[in-house]
Amino acid sequence: MMEQIQESIQRRAAEIEGIIKSYLPAEAGPQRTVLEAMNYSVLAGGKRLRPMLMQETYRMFGGRGREVEPLMAAIEMIHTYSLVHDDLPAMDNDEYRRGRKTTHVVYGEAMGILAGDGLLNLAWETAMRSFSVSGQDAGFVQSAEDPTRDEAVRMRRVAGAVEVLARKAGVYGMIGGQTADIEAEGEGQVSGEQLLFIHEHKTAALIQAAMMAGAILAGADKEQVLQMERCAYDIGIAFQIQDDILDVTGTVEELGKPIGSDKKNQKQTYVTIMGMEASVREVERLSGEAVKILASMEGDSGFLRELTAFLIHRKK
Amino acid sequence: MMEQIQESIQRRAAEIEGIIKSYLPAEAGPQRTVLEAMNYSVLAGGKRLRPMLMQETYRMFGGRGREVEPLMAAIEMIHTYSLVHDDLPAMDNDEYRRGRKTTHVVYGEAMGILAGDGLLNLAWETAMRSFSVSGQDAGFVQSAEDPTRDEAVRMRRVAGAVEVLARKAGVYGMIGGQTADIEAEGEGQVSGEQLLFIHEHKTAALIQAAMMAGAILAGADKEQVLQMERCAYDIGIAFQIQDDILDVTGTVEELGKPIGSDKKNQKQTYVTIMGMEASVREVERLSGEAVKILASMEGDSGFLRELTAFLIHRKK
Repeated sequence: MMEQIQESIQRRAAEIEGIIKSYLPAEAGPQRTVLEAMNYSVLAGGKRLRPMLMQETYRMFGGRGREVEPLMAAIEMIHTYSLVHDDLPAMDNDEYRRGRKTTHVVYGEAMGILAGDGLLNLAWETAMRSFSVSGQDAGFVQSAEDPTRDEAVRMRRVAGAVEVLARKAGVYGMIGGQTADIEAEGEGQVSGEQLLFIHEHKTAALIQAAMMAGAILAGADKEQVLQMERCAYDIGIAFQIQDDILDVTGTVEELGKPIGSDKKNQKQTYVTIMGMEASVREVERLSGEAVKILASMEGDSGFLRELTAFLIHRKK
Repeated sequence: MMEQIQESIQRRAAEIEGIIKSYLPAEAGPQRTVLEAMNYSVLAGGKRLRPMLMQETYRMFGGRGREVEPLMAAIEMIHTYSLVHDDLPAMDNDEYRRGRKTTHVVYGEAMGILAGDGLLNLAWETAMRSFSVSGQDAGFVQSAEDPTRDEAVRMRRVAGAVEVLARKAGVYGMIGGQTADIEAEGEGQVSGEQLLFIHEHKTAALIQAAMMAGAILAGADKEQVLQMERCAYDIGIAFQIQDDILDVTGTVEELGKPIGSDKKNQKQTYVTIMGMEASVREVERLSGEAVKILASMEGDSGFLRELTAFLIHRKK
């Protein structure tokens, strides 16, 4: 069963790869270096988990259009810029990610900063394309004709989805978590409460954005969107605790990165604070809750439930 | 006459200051440090030129609503983040700006990066508020009622304005110019063509965004928006050449920064490449063209024309 779902995930990831690529810039012009650095960063691989969750949530709520695609590309650009800036010397100072040299190591620190800025801005440029049905430029040239009812309803949904994405990516979401993380490292001792704040914001917030934006775009109602927020919270925190567990129990081959790096960096994790047994139990509890929420939805949640189980039981 | 327009500019700048402040974050929560660093950066002063141009262009085309206000705050946040990241050690490594220590000097390099990221993201969060008439949260909770024609038309205009802002701020606009600037510094010799690309993108693009977004929000037609793009180009380039001229002719008292810093840094400027006489003539030509475009508009362009003349003839 795990092989089957893995194959299904890979097929979807390949489709998403094509969507993301179609929104990446051509490497031309006097600003070519930053465009190359941006593409290098985005095309480093990765699970494409956030666009996948967005698309599947959109489908679960009956979404059938293509207006979700620019937002799928946008959320992956946001995720990528956050990694590029996180890796900078002044931040985590990481030289490798996913087995490749990090962006600033290849292109220099100034280009690392600019590539991150470029991706974050391109994310919003790209997101704005959702306002046009075709996924092409919204264009500042306003039609002389009145908007149809369909166009008006779609614009309202897109505005809502982009707003949620912006909020969850910002200082009350992901950037807030990064700030708390950087400060916690400086302080040494981290409380369970601080760690939860960091995980909730640095990891879970963008996963919430993915599922909430997908739901909003498909026309889900307020209650359904809030349930997706809760479900994504469970998935995000379970995902992060599983990361902490794998850092202790995984093998180098499975993870593709040094084992015990958290311990070496004296990083406080869910495992060091709560213990291994409690961590495993918490992952089970959270993923169970997420699957239960998904199962209670009207639409077909089969793939999302399998994906959740897969993420939690992954070995890397 | 210069005193009168200066007073008028200051009055408008004070009003804009209030609008910007109303969109800045409260300094609370575990991520407080990044919020403080963001506010420190935005409240360092400055001419508030971009929001002023946006608001006045909006008014010139008959705009009377408040949906322009979130976008005014957003463009100033974008301008500010670009300065914060430009000042970083890996970029221009500046310790002072407008007589105050730069953000990374006060809050550390990691917070300098995060504060810039936070401001860029907050800009888009704030911009999304233009979708609601009141300038408050658009909110993901979609009304069950159909959008009215007025709401639909406004959403379309806001989407167009935000799209232009995103494009002009990004890799094909401001960030593109910063990239070319960083690379030119590494190369030593800069051609007139390269310098124009840098000025067009690093400086003029965001001024174009200000005037184009103001026009689009007010319902200007395509031809009018393109004329504002041209007019803002003239203003932006003239503004930048005047900067280069003042670096040679100004006094420390007037500028509040060391004179001849461009020469000291061996920075190529319009003056070093084209000569002082040609530079002065070009500023005159460009500002004359900008004023002519403004005068040809139907609405009241009085203040915008005075502002243009003031910017060009300023001594600091």
